[in-house]
Amino acid sequence: MQVKLRLEYDGTNYSGWQLQHGQDSIQARLEAALARICGAPVRVRAAGRTDAGVHARGQVAAARLPRRLAPQELARALNAMLPDDIAVLDAAEVDDRFDPRRDARLRIYEYRVLNRALRSVFARNSAWLVREPLDLEAMNRAAAEFVGEHDFAAFRSLGSVEKTTVRRVVVSRWRCEPEQDARGLVYRVEASAFLRHMVRTMVAAMVEVGRGKPAGKPPATTISALLASRDRALAPAPAPAAGLYLVDVLY
Amino acid sequence: MQVKLRLEYDGTNYSGWQLQHGQDSIQARLEAALARICGAPVRVRAAGRTDAGVHARGQVAAARLPRRLAPQELARALNAMLPDDIAVLDAAEVDDRFDPRRDARLRIYEYRVLNRALRSVFARNSAWLVREPLDLEAMNRAAAEFVGEHDFAAFRSLGSVEKTTVRRVVVSRWRCEPEQDARGLVYRVEASAFLRHMVRTMVAAMVEVGRGKPAGKPPATTISALLASRDRALAPAPAPAAGLYLVDVLY
Repeated sequence: MQVKLRLEYDGTNYSGWQLQHGQDSIQARLEAALARICGAPVRVRAAGRTDAGVHARGQVAAARLPRRLAPQELARALNAMLPDDIAVLDAAEVDDRFDPRRDARLRIYEYRVLNRALRSVFARNSAWLVREPLDLEAMNRAAAEFVGEHDFAAFRSLGSVEKTTVRRVVVSRWRCEPEQDARGLVYRVEASAFLRHMVRTMVAAMVEVGRGKPAGKPPATTISALLASRDRALAPAPAPAAGLYLVDVLY
Repeated sequence: MQVKLRLEYDGTNYSGWQLQHGQDSIQARLEAALARICGAPVRVRAAGRTDAGVHARGQVAAARLPRRLAPQELARALNAMLPDDIAVLDAAEVDDRFDPRRDARLRIYEYRVLNRALRSVFARNSAWLVREPLDLEAMNRAAAEFVGEHDFAAFRSLGSVEKTTVRRVVVSRWRCEPEQDARGLVYRVEASAFLRHMVRTMVAAMVEVGRGKPAGKPPATTISALLASRDRALAPAPAPAAGLYLVDVLY
């Protein structure tokens, strides 16, 4: 049988989703727990391979199990075995042909910026600390420029080898969540698929705008000009991993 | 000169505020940083000696420095030197007679309960996870019973040796902070002084009420009856340290 898992994790202590020799990954922890439960090796595939330090509130993964297990019992057993920074939110049986990566219709990410002058003890691994005051309205005008189908070549990670860099963004907006002694800015972006480092590079460009600076290096000084340039060298470096959350994946 | 510091810390990785031989404490880290800045040993005293795992958003501490330093420069130097789970929010010069413990007029604590069926990855060190549904109205009725001057002998820590166990509570109420996929319940309590473990034991008794059970062991089944009993054996064990925050101290 194949099972679909919805996962929450704090990525701080992991080298990312993906199995990497000699490093601790979410996939490694999940596969180890499943192997113990099933008494045989189990391979897990995820909707999105989150990078080191990136978090998930709704990552989706799938695994083919060598024997039948009630999904809710499997979830309970996994939660008893997984470390306290990884949790299974839900488990369900799915068709054997289900592919969490290929079948995903919509991926939803959020990025958290903490806007305060002093470094924050509680948000140190869960948000990007930006000390200068940020202009939320200007950031939301910049966010709107991302909506629609665009070539995101300027926002990809260096050295990535995607067939196409065109993506369709359906939601892109900032909201304000007041926090104790600080302003929390949360960016939400929804698209069927993203390039590696795309959300973090978009956030970095919008935060530049919020600081009252150009979004990218001249001559591309607006989001639209950055998109049109298709030139990675004109966009800023990606925002820190700690602010990024994979919030949900829809099928 | 004497300096007054306002501090934020995540207590997860410490044995508490107070210096303890062979253990890592907030006081030890702060005194080590001050000694490096001043070139001489410096003793620090705090408004409240928080226990292991308890957090602070507004602890107040004072230190007599062997030489004059601009308070804002001192704060910057401390923040550059302290680990990322301890931060100085503010520093100010105060009269040499200022005593952060004796002079405190009001101490404000908050306690965070996360009410959700599944364990939470992100709140694992910052809230008490209560899986059963809680009746917030019943908890607020129970909270109101604490307001006023009472003998809190039933709510002290076992083996404590305070001269008097009478304390005056001026604010005691729960509020709801909706969180992603969960309900966050935050208890706020204000008093001039507290007994050790008092807030955590009060929270444990109120959560029992929220679960639809008696606040304490019979015959003391309400908060008022527990207070009147003055019997520590009738109250529940303290709620976990991870949910407790020293929010502010007023002078």
